[in-house]
Amino acid sequence: MVAVAILAAGRGTRMKSDLPKVLHTLSGRSLVERVIDSCSLLDLDKQIVIIGYQGEKVKQALSHRPDVEFVEQTEQLGTGHALQQVMSSLQGYRGDLLVLNGDAPLLRPETLQKLVETHQAKQNAATLLTASLPNPQGYGRVFCNKDDLVSQIIEDRDCNIAQKQNRRVNAGIYCFNWEKLAESLPKLSTNNDQKEYYLTEVVDYLSPVMAVDVEDYREINGINDRQQLSAAYDVLQERIKDNWMKAGVMMLNPDSITIDETVQLEPDVILEPQTHLRGKTSIATGSRIGPGSLVEDSTISNNVTIAYSVVKGTEISANTTVGPYAHLRGDIKLGAGCRVGNFVEIKKATIDDNTKVAHLSYIGNAALAENVNVGAGTITANYDGKNKHQTTIKKGTKTGANSVLVAPVTLGENVTVAAGSVVTQDVKDNALVVARSRQKEIPDWNQE
Amino acid sequence: MVAVAILAAGRGTRMKSDLPKVLHTLSGRSLVERVIDSCSLLDLDKQIVIIGYQGEKVKQALSHRPDVEFVEQTEQLGTGHALQQVMSSLQGYRGDLLVLNGDAPLLRPETLQKLVETHQAKQNAATLLTASLPNPQGYGRVFCNKDDLVSQIIEDRDCNIAQKQNRRVNAGIYCFNWEKLAESLPKLSTNNDQKEYYLTEVVDYLSPVMAVDVEDYREINGINDRQQLSAAYDVLQERIKDNWMKAGVMMLNPDSITIDETVQLEPDVILEPQTHLRGKTSIATGSRIGPGSLVEDSTISNNVTIAYSVVKGTEISANTTVGPYAHLRGDIKLGAGCRVGNFVEIKKATIDDNTKVAHLSYIGNAALAENVNVGAGTITANYDGKNKHQTTIKKGTKTGANSVLVAPVTLGENVTVAAGSVVTQDVKDNALVVARSRQKEIPDWNQE
Amino acid sequence: MVAVAILAAGRGTRMKSDLPKVLHTLSGRSLVERVIDSCSLLDLDKQIVIIGYQGEKVKQALSHRPDVEFVEQTEQLGTGHALQQVMSSLQGYRGDLLVLNGDAPLLRPETLQKLVETHQAKQNAATLLTASLPNPQGYGRVFCNKDDLVSQIIEDRDCNIAQKQNRRVNAGIYCFNWEKLAESLPKLSTNNDQKEYYLTEVVDYLSPVMAVDVEDYREINGINDRQQLSAAYDVLQERIKDNWMKAGVMMLNPDSITIDETVQLEPDVILEPQTHLRGKTSIATGSRIGPGSLVEDSTISNNVTIAYSVVKGTEISANTTVGPYAHLRGDIKLGAGCRVGNFVEIKKATIDDNTKVAHLSYIGNAALAENVNVGAGTITANYDGKNKHQTTIKKGTKTGANSVLVAPVTLGENVTVAAGSVVTQDVKDNALVVARSRQKEIPDWNQE
Repeated sequence: MVAVAILAAGRGTRMKSDLPKVLHTLSGRSLVERVIDSCSLLDLDKQIVIIGYQGEKVKQALSHRPDVEFVEQTEQLGTGHALQQVMSSLQGYRGDLLVLNGDAPLLRPETLQKLVETHQAKQNAATLLTASLPNPQGYGRVFCNKDDLVSQIIEDRDCNIAQKQNRRVNAGIYCFNWEKLAESLPKLSTNNDQKEYYLTEVVDYLSPVMAVDVEDYREINGINDRQQLSAAYDVLQERIKDNWMKAGVMMLNPDSITIDETVQLEPDVILEPQTHLRGKTSIATGSRIGPGSLVEDSTISNNVTIAYSVVKGTEISANTTVGPYAHLRGDIKLGAGCRVGNFVEIKKATIDDNTKVAHLSYIGNAALAENVNVGAGTITANYDGKNKHQTTIKKGTKTGANSVLVAPVTLGENVTVAAGSVVTQDVKDNALVVARSRQKEIPDWNQE
Repeated sequence: MVAVAILAAGRGTRMKSDLPKVLHTLSGRSLVERVIDSCSLLDLDKQIVIIGYQGEKVKQALSHRPDVEFVEQTEQLGTGHALQQVMSSLQGYRGDLLVLNGDAPLLRPETLQKLVETHQAKQNAATLLTASLPNPQGYGRVFCNKDDLVSQIIEDRDCNIAQKQNRRVNAGIYCFNWEKLAESLPKLSTNNDQKEYYLTEVVDYLSPVMAVDVEDYREINGINDRQQLSAAYDVLQERIKDNWMKAGVMMLNPDSITIDETVQLEPDVILEPQTHLRGKTSIATGSRIGPGSLVEDSTISNNVTIAYSVVKGTEISANTTVGPYAHLRGDIKLGAGCRVGNFVEIKKATIDDNTKVAHLSYIGNAALAENVNVGAGTITANYDGKNKHQTTIKKGTKTGANSVLVAPVTLGENVTVAAGSVVTQDVKDNALVVARSRQKEIPDWNQE
Repeated sequence: MVAVAILAAGRGTRMKSDLPKVLHTLSGRSLVERVIDSCSLLDLDKQIVIIGYQGEKVKQALSHRPDVEFVEQTEQLGTGHALQQVMSSLQGYRGDLLVLNGDAPLLRPETLQKLVETHQAKQNAATLLTASLPNPQGYGRVFCNKDDLVSQIIEDRDCNIAQKQNRRVNAGIYCFNWEKLAESLPKLSTNNDQKEYYLTEVVDYLSPVMAVDVEDYREINGINDRQQLSAAYDVLQERIKDNWMKAGVMMLNPDSITIDETVQLEPDVILEPQTHLRGKTSIATGSRIGPGSLVEDSTISNNVTIAYSVVKGTEISANTTVGPYAHLRGDIKLGAGCRVGNFVEIKKATIDDNTKVAHLSYIGNAALAENVNVGAGTITANYDGKNKHQTTIKKGTKTGANSVLVAPVTLGENVTVAAGSVVTQDVKDNALVVARSRQKEIPDWNQE
């Protein structure tokens, strides 16, 4: 049995932002939401978020998570004071309480699982997460005997020179036996420089207290300013990219690539520099994405090529090539063996196999069958100023350069649209449609 | 009272360039100009640039700085020799002389201020800037007693093993009591391997000589080759980006972002990867720029979005979105709530609130009122081969796909331009204008 | 006399790929091909590639290299076993044998030259390449007396604590006296944990054995997974970029730039961030490429500017500007002083001096003379659905906005094409050609 309390009442002044600190986002999710999600391997009895600064905003941001309860900490009197606020919520509770910081979003679920499992297996009164920092300055040092039992936690400012050599620090992440914690919380004092109630003090009242080391010390990083937020993003990205490379994905210049955690990749996918994969995107083996591309919420099949393009909300079948400089705006199905070329915008369209939209076109609210060839500069005029209308093009049809298809309109099979034509009425199968003027020549116009 | 002499006579052979070394640019300003600007917190009596290799070019490059005097060093006989050239310029001068290297552009004004203030407060004969290098190889080591009084400067090649352990090096940046320096300069000899007059030697003739440490050792980096120039750019960029992050700007993948020093940003601006901000650009809170965008000499209001676009010389009001793949070329005012979409080029235009130029258009020499909808493929034909002419579109007007507006031309309010029309004459309010041929169908054209 | 044997039989399971490990590419060439090319300074008698996993694929991939012989290793019983397979190929051979790993593509030719020269000058029985690793964990340590004569090689797992301090490791790269090696190979045993025949064992049977240090330890890096492949690419890129910076090329944000080894650059070329130069590309002095550009197999003359563009198979003369958002697709000659602007695609075209294709155009299968001005939205309709046809535009001609040139067609000199015209027939010099309808106005169409 384990509950979690997440400290999320702080303002985060150094963020220099209107937003409370824990609502800043890291790769699509807010810090506090990430902290909640870091408990994903635990079977939680209760999820308590302790709110304060702009608490209503935090509540609202988490309103899609009905399991979360909120407890208010009206004054900011320290971490111990924050925990005192949950006493009534947890009255009579007989399990363990995991205490997390709402601004430390990099903890891996495996780390918290290990913390809780160790805590429960050893029947500790408290178990705290420790990390070995390359530069521990500013952090409280944790001193243990063998068996990782904590003998002392000394704040940085109180360490003598020898003690400062200890690089094992207190991460501020704890698992407590709740009943024992509940007995100790009222004993906290404000006998310190800041006149705050420190949670660290309860360690003096509890026994046994054990330390568990985190694998990668960067997991415990808290976010206090934009540089730390940016650095946390880099840590997250390194983790994601290393995992995909281990799984067989090739990346050129991975430092310039970003990938959301929600993305799925297959082996032998190649990512070129400056590629960004976001949202619910999946990419199948043999596809090459980039350079300079953004793919979001899209499903990309095998051997697809996307270069210098923005692709959103699109499903692409095998062997299709996109770009450079294509913009697929969403609600799109692209068949196999298609080609979407430069300066082409597509929105809300179904395009069947082997159809080509190679240059300078806008295709919106349209259904194109297979083997259609859309000429350069062809535009579906789908908007009459009030409503959007549908364009249908059947198989084998070719549109000429700079033609306009004024929707609603249907072109039959194997139609040829002459260059420069504005098509406003449906066209029958196999017809040639022309809507343009005859060429007139005025001789000797330019005389110099 | 302080004057500055900047050594800028060298060629910089390792730059492998036609340009003299000090004229290479770093983020928009030449090295020598940056060195001059590093004195911005000092109240200078005189600014002397000592020129030699391609001296005329250097003079010309600094011609917009009337306060700068030039002294020629026709032969390159060492730093001491360079300073000997300024003796006639400074005859009778009774202040201090700051000596800077024209190829060391990373010194912060605060550093030089501290150097000069210390020099004057302590009434030193000479004060030199020192840095603690992680790898001091090749640099002269500075040995001080307590109180930072210099006892000895030993060149790297003359150091014994113990002396080489000293990582405090001479940056080659000095503040001298000019009268004392002037007495010492004639005493310099060429008793050394290079047969040159070294400024370091005057330290032997002066007393007291004090050392002042620089905060970040990278400030003293000199530029001798392209790698060092590139590295200096990185140092500069890190400084700029750290400052903006401290001020509340969010950056994703900051390593891929570049920002000129002339840019102004507000808190809660978000910069996506591969974004470059240049020149006199300012961006207001809530705006998101990038990925893959270049914004130059532009004023961007609140909550503007710019993605994968090039924006120059443009003023954009709140809540407008630009891109992907838009090119705003200059002399542009974009209202609030506008949308400039893909494959749109705009030049010399005023576009009022809520107007949309969403796709595949060229708008040049134009004034568009509010709530105009420019259809895909609409082009303002502003150039008759000799002159540029103006297009005016009044509020609520809509142009059809692939229409051409041949300037000079005015479309009234609420006009509708039919798709594919070439408009050559002014159009009245509320009219529909059509300039196209009727659609003809030739059946059974395609028979296979 | 020297022959080379390259171990290329492994599968490379950790690559998680269908491709055998040595066929993965690094900047355009497969790993095994790079290893062969690292011998470029040696005069080789024989090149033997030892194949195994998907050996046929490896053979095929190297089929353009007639000098390479293949020897099959049907079972994977260790490096010694691999070498035993070449005994029949080298029967009676009286020179030296260089042994390389097909998955270690970063060795510089100079390194192998030094290895072989030392081996031959000292008349060693074996000479092995060693490297001083910052973190030697997992590598066999090489212990030498003075004169670099090897006394012992101890595998990592067999090292005591003192021995583990030795950071000099065995790179697995050897030069052998073949006759002596041939005598020793049959003596190899499988008395080890892996039950494999280790080549290291022959060192016990040979004398003298000498070690030669590699200059940069990263040269010996082997590729076992995608992270290592990605890291090898970074090493290669750093090497290439450092060389070009030494040669006078300026790079901004070099970490975001990639350059193939096949590229040639002149001094005073400027590369902006996110620039990628690939294939047989050369760029002359004064040109500025980037940001965000890809240039492949192209020849760029002096003072050319390319920004945010993709340029392939193009020859560009001096002072021409390209981009942003231009796509030059190949088989193109661009004259001097030309301008190719935004949203312009060009393919298979000759464009003479001072011609402008400034916006929203597709030019394919075309010859444009000098001083042509191609209006915005002009399209060469070069494809009739079956064949491509040629468009010819003579000097001084101007095409209007959204005009279409239906090929085959020739426009004479100083022709003016009116905006929105579809030109289907040849036009004489100096003529104005118009093919559009008169403007009609329907008043009071929009009533609200």
